[in-house]
Amino acid sequence: MKRVKLTVAYDGTNYHGWQIQPNGVTIEEVLNHHLSELLREPIKIIGASRTDAGVHARGNVAVFDTSARMPAEKISYALNTRLPADIRIQDSREVRPDFHPRFCETVKTYEYCILNRKFPDPTRRLYALFYYYPLDLEKMRQAAGYLVGEHDFKSLCTQKPEVENTVRTIYSVDIIKEDDLIRIRICGNGFLYNMIRIIVGTLLRIGSGYYEPEYMKELLELKNRQAAGETAPPQGLTLVEIRYPEEEKL
Amino acid sequence: MKRVKLTVAYDGTNYHGWQIQPNGVTIEEVLNHHLSELLREPIKIIGASRTDAGVHARGNVAVFDTSARMPAEKISYALNTRLPADIRIQDSREVRPDFHPRFCETVKTYEYCILNRKFPDPTRRLYALFYYYPLDLEKMRQAAGYLVGEHDFKSLCTQKPEVENTVRTIYSVDIIKEDDLIRIRICGNGFLYNMIRIIVGTLLRIGSGYYEPEYMKELLELKNRQAAGETAPPQGLTLVEIRYPEEEKL
Repeated sequence: MKRVKLTVAYDGTNYHGWQIQPNGVTIEEVLNHHLSELLREPIKIIGASRTDAGVHARGNVAVFDTSARMPAEKISYALNTRLPADIRIQDSREVRPDFHPRFCETVKTYEYCILNRKFPDPTRRLYALFYYYPLDLEKMRQAAGYLVGEHDFKSLCTQKPEVENTVRTIYSVDIIKEDDLIRIRICGNGFLYNMIRIIVGTLLRIGSGYYEPEYMKELLELKNRQAAGETAPPQGLTLVEIRYPEEEKL
Repeated sequence: MKRVKLTVAYDGTNYHGWQIQPNGVTIEEVLNHHLSELLREPIKIIGASRTDAGVHARGNVAVFDTSARMPAEKISYALNTRLPADIRIQDSREVRPDFHPRFCETVKTYEYCILNRKFPDPTRRLYALFYYYPLDLEKMRQAAGYLVGEHDFKSLCTQKPEVENTVRTIYSVDIIKEDDLIRIRICGNGFLYNMIRIIVGTLLRIGSGYYEPEYMKELLELKNRQAAGETAPPQGLTLVEIRYPEEEKL
């Protein structure tokens, strides 16, 4: 028996998110199905990040246990020949049997893309939020600065009854503009439900002058979701990378 | 009566190309339908570039005549509210009544994207060719240099019986690499059927060492399509821009 870690990239457009659910096809379900067929035993993966419907990934992580003899490194190639074109394994390797993708120290990086121009671009409609109004990036950067560090992000998440601790650490927020594309890249030790999309919705309000940058600081203290901006739509969001600093030391 | 010029962007994934044909939905057909409904008179557009199935555009050009009173500049906004999300007008303006998008001096720019990495990226599968093998960009640039200028491109097109003159002028070929994405940007006064995709297929053979760069020069002299590389697949190709230098002087 060995534990295998997969790095998974997908276009979330046609999926009801990562996690198995009754009313639509999910990434988890498709991976379980094709892994079970490939390895000829029932496989159940454990995912690191349960991304929402329409959210994309370049590097989500999943692990599973198998007694199959296929070398871990070969599974990526073999699985990719079976998967639909909108899911592609980027790496497969053996990990220690007690490695758990959610209960380890992690550094997660997400990127939210905003297309800020006069008219939508059809070839980017599935991977960026189209935003017509001008945005003041300096104000957005100032506001984003208040998010860095350990904070209670209760104002900036959709509350789930089972989550009691809403304290998280954000390591960095970078806002980069290349032509008409604005990338908000957020790196942290973990994110609450809808947290990045609510941060982006609030940054959009600040960038368009509806709130001042200092409002982000107040918002953290208010601990009230109603005081934040809208949840930005899913298609702009991509899970870029999940790193496991403890594993990398091994 | 006025003549209106549209700048049209589209995701070609779900269309059978630009030009109306019996066996599938085309960009031309969708534009005619929605323009006719919007302006309440039968509209038939004349397109500048009849892109193939699966090819994208950021700036194709079309003109039509209308007696509707709607100002030309407003048509872009009004039409975009009716069009499917994979077609978006970028500009609409009145032009002189005898302006024809194909029978004018033009400078056309196309871009072909190649994703050169170990595994495919699902979010870019519809807009770039995935290519696994390493590519020598210096060899590709040297080969591309032979294409610049006025040449008979008979070796680098799919012959159409109605096209007798296969001489065209290429102004520039730029090969740019950003991370794992290679962009081949070609600018010329006009392109023959499949010409850019055959040029790209041949550059791929040169970049992977199958031909030497000098072969591109020989190939032009051979005037034989069989001697060139494969036609690269359509999804990597985007019509970036069509400029009309004479019009810009007015």
